[in-house]
Amino acid sequence: MFEIAIGGKQLKKVMKAINLLVNEARIVVSDKRLGITARDPANIALAVAKIPKEDCEVYKLDGEKMEIGVDIDRMHDIAKTFREDTVTIKCLDKSLQLVCGKMKYSIPLIDPSAIQKPPKVPDLKEKLNAKVEISGKKFRQMILLADKISEQIVFQSNKDEFMAIAEGDIDELKFTYGKAELIDFNGEEARAMYSIEYLKSFLRVIENKDVVVLKFGTDYPLLLEVKGEFATTVGFFLAPRISEVE
Amino acid sequence: MFEIAIGGKQLKKVMKAINLLVNEARIVVSDKRLGITARDPANIALAVAKIPKEDCEVYKLDGEKMEIGVDIDRMHDIAKTFREDTVTIKCLDKSLQLVCGKMKYSIPLIDPSAIQKPPKVPDLKEKLNAKVEISGKKFRQMILLADKISEQIVFQSNKDEFMAIAEGDIDELKFTYGKAELIDFNGEEARAMYSIEYLKSFLRVIENKDVVVLKFGTDYPLLLEVKGEFATTVGFFLAPRISEVE
Amino acid sequence: MFEIAIGGKQLKKVMKAINLLVNEARIVVSDKRLGITARDPANIALAVAKIPKEDCEVYKLDGEKMEIGVDIDRMHDIAKTFREDTVTIKCLDKSLQLVCGKMKYSIPLIDPSAIQKPPKVPDLKEKLNAKVEISGKKFRQMILLADKISEQIVFQSNKDEFMAIAEGDIDELKFTYGKAELIDFNGEEARAMYSIEYLKSFLRVIENKDVVVLKFGTDYPLLLEVKGEFATTVGFFLAPRISEVE
Repeated sequence: MFEIAIGGKQLKKVMKAINLLVNEARIVVSDKRLGITARDPANIALAVAKIPKEDCEVYKLDGEKMEIGVDIDRMHDIAKTFREDTVTIKCLDKSLQLVCGKMKYSIPLIDPSAIQKPPKVPDLKEKLNAKVEISGKKFRQMILLADKISEQIVFQSNKDEFMAIAEGDIDELKFTYGKAELIDFNGEEARAMYSIEYLKSFLRVIENKDVVVLKFGTDYPLLLEVKGEFATTVGFFLAPRISEVE
Repeated sequence: MFEIAIGGKQLKKVMKAINLLVNEARIVVSDKRLGITARDPANIALAVAKIPKEDCEVYKLDGEKMEIGVDIDRMHDIAKTFREDTVTIKCLDKSLQLVCGKMKYSIPLIDPSAIQKPPKVPDLKEKLNAKVEISGKKFRQMILLADKISEQIVFQSNKDEFMAIAEGDIDELKFTYGKAELIDFNGEEARAMYSIEYLKSFLRVIENKDVVVLKFGTDYPLLLEVKGEFATTVGFFLAPRISEVE
Repeated sequence: MFEIAIGGKQLKKVMKAINLLVNEARIVVSDKRLGITARDPANIALAVAKIPKEDCEVYKLDGEKMEIGVDIDRMHDIAKTFREDTVTIKCLDKSLQLVCGKMKYSIPLIDPSAIQKPPKVPDLKEKLNAKVEISGKKFRQMILLADKISEQIVFQSNKDEFMAIAEGDIDELKFTYGKAELIDFNGEEARAMYSIEYLKSFLRVIENKDVVVLKFGTDYPLLLEVKGEFATTVGFFLAPRISEVE
C-alpha cells in the first residue's frame, strides 16, 4: 500500500506522457520514486516518467517496492482537469484513489501481469554523444514548422552548431543554432534522422518554459528529456530512421 | 404591441437557455415581465426564463398581456453576437424587431397557436426539500468530470453534506461538499439521479461567477436555477432517473 | 536577383490574402515595390497586394524589374508562423529563401510562364463613386451577422448614410451608419449587391484595428482595401451580383 501527495500539474504531465504511448501501464513505487515506463505498440518510442520523493508533500510506502497495474486512459482523463492543487494518490487493496479537494475518484487496480512488461530502458550513455539543451518554445516552433514540410527531421551537430533539417519533395527547411542560442551544447559530432510524427506528439507535454534536452548519436536513438521547474521528469527514447543515401 | 430595452448579455442568456430545448417558442409579456417557458421534445426537461421589468431600461406594453410566437433559432443566432450593449425589442404588427446600436434585425412573428403550448410549470415547492447553492465554477467542474465516468449522476444530501456521485462500469467519482464549501445549504435529506447529458447542456448558460441553485427531493425532479448579477433568471426542471437497485 | 527584409506580420498578411484566391502566383518586384495580383478560379474576385519599398528594412534589386513564380500554399504555410520578427526574402537563381532568425526555408522557383498571367487590375476609378471607410471591427460584425441571414449583402449609400442590408427568406438585417460612425464617407449615391461568402473569406486578413475602405458604384464591382499600420496593403475587387427585381 502507498500514499503519495503531489501537485496536480506534475501528475497531469506524467499521465499525459505515458498516455501518448499506451492505454494501460504498470506503476512502480520504490522508496525513492514513483516511476512508469511504457513502449508504444509500434515499438518505435519509449516513455519514462519519474516522480521522485522530493517532489511529494506526502510519500508513504509499506515495504520496499510495489508494482500496480493501472488504466492510464482513465487516470489521464481525470488528471487533465488538475491544476496547481495537491492530489493525493492512495493505493488500497483493490483500488487506486485520487483525492483532489472535495473530489474523490476510485478506479480498480489491474493485475500487473495482465499488462505489457515495462520495457527495459536501453543504456546508451556512451552512444548518445551529442547533447543539446534548447527552450521548449524554440523546440516547438522547429517541430511544427518542419511538420509542414516533411515526415522526418535530421538532427545534426558539429563543434560549432546544432542543425535541424527537414527536406520536403521540393523545399527545404533548416534551423541552425550556435552555442549562444542554446541553453547547453557540447559540440560533439552526430547526425540522425527521426520521425516528426512522434516528436510532434511529444510536444503535448512540452511547455514553452520547459527545457528540452536532446541526446543523440549518429544513427542512434534520440533521448528527449523534458525538464520543468520540478524534479519530476518525463523523457522519451525515439528510434532513428534509416537515412536515405544522398 | 410592446417595446423593451435590455442588456444584450441578458437577452443572449435567455435565448440560449430556451434554444437548448426548442426551436420555436411563445413569448409572454405581462406588466411585470417577459417570460418564456419551453419543454424539450423528449419531455425530460423544462426551461423557464424571465426578464423582469426591473432589469429593463425601457418597458412599454399596450394592454395587460401579450403572447407572440418566435423562431428561437433565429433570435438566438443573432443574440449570440450581443455583448454589453443595450438591445431594443420592438413588437410590431407582424414582425419582431431587434435593434442594437446601428443594427436592425426583423423577423416575422409566428402564429402562437402553431407553436407548442407553453408547458405548465409544476408546483413542487414542498417536494423539492433539499436546497444547495453552489458556484457556477464548482458545478461545472463537477459535471464535466462526472461526464467522463458515467451518463448519470446522483445528488445526495444529508444534514452535514451534499454529495454528487457518478458511477462508471468500474470506477467511481464522488464530490463531497460540507456547508463551508457551499454558498447555501439547508441540510435536508434527499437523493435522486439525473441525466448528465442534460446537466452538461445546461452548462452552456452557466458562467463561473454565476450561482447555481439546486432544489431536489428523493426521486423527484431537479430544479436548477442560474442566478447572475441581474434579476433576469433562467431555470430548468429535469426529470429524475429511476435509481438502480444496488 | 533580389533581397528584401520585411516584418513577418506584413509578409503573413500578403501571403494570406493571395492564398485566399490562388495556390500559385507570380511575384513582381520593381524598384518601388513587391507586388502580387491574383484572380480566383471562378473569376469573381481579384486580390492585389503591395509591399512598398518604404516598409522594407532591406530592399535590393538587380536590374529594374523581376518576375518570379512561387507556390503560394507553401509560402503561406511557413508565413503563418511569422510574428513581429523580420523576415529576409532572398531570390537566388533557382530558389526563393525565407530567413527568419535561425530558420532558413528554401523553395524552388516556378517558371512564371507556367502560372496564370496576373489579371489586369480594372481601372474603375470613376465608376466606383461611393467611398466608405469603416473600422475592421464594425465590418467584421456586419459580415458575420449578415452571413447568418443570407448569401448576399447590399451596400447602399446616399448623402446621409451608408447601409448594409441582408435579406433572408423571411427575415431582414440592416445596418445603418451615419457620417459620425464612419471613419470617412463621401455621401455619393450607389447601390450594389455582393457575395457574403467572398466577403467573409476576406475577413481572414482584416484585423479589428484595421481600416476597411469600401469603394463601390451602382451594380459595379466592390474595391475593398485593408489599411493597417504599415504602407503594405492588401485589396480585393469583387464582382457585383445581379440585383433581384423588387
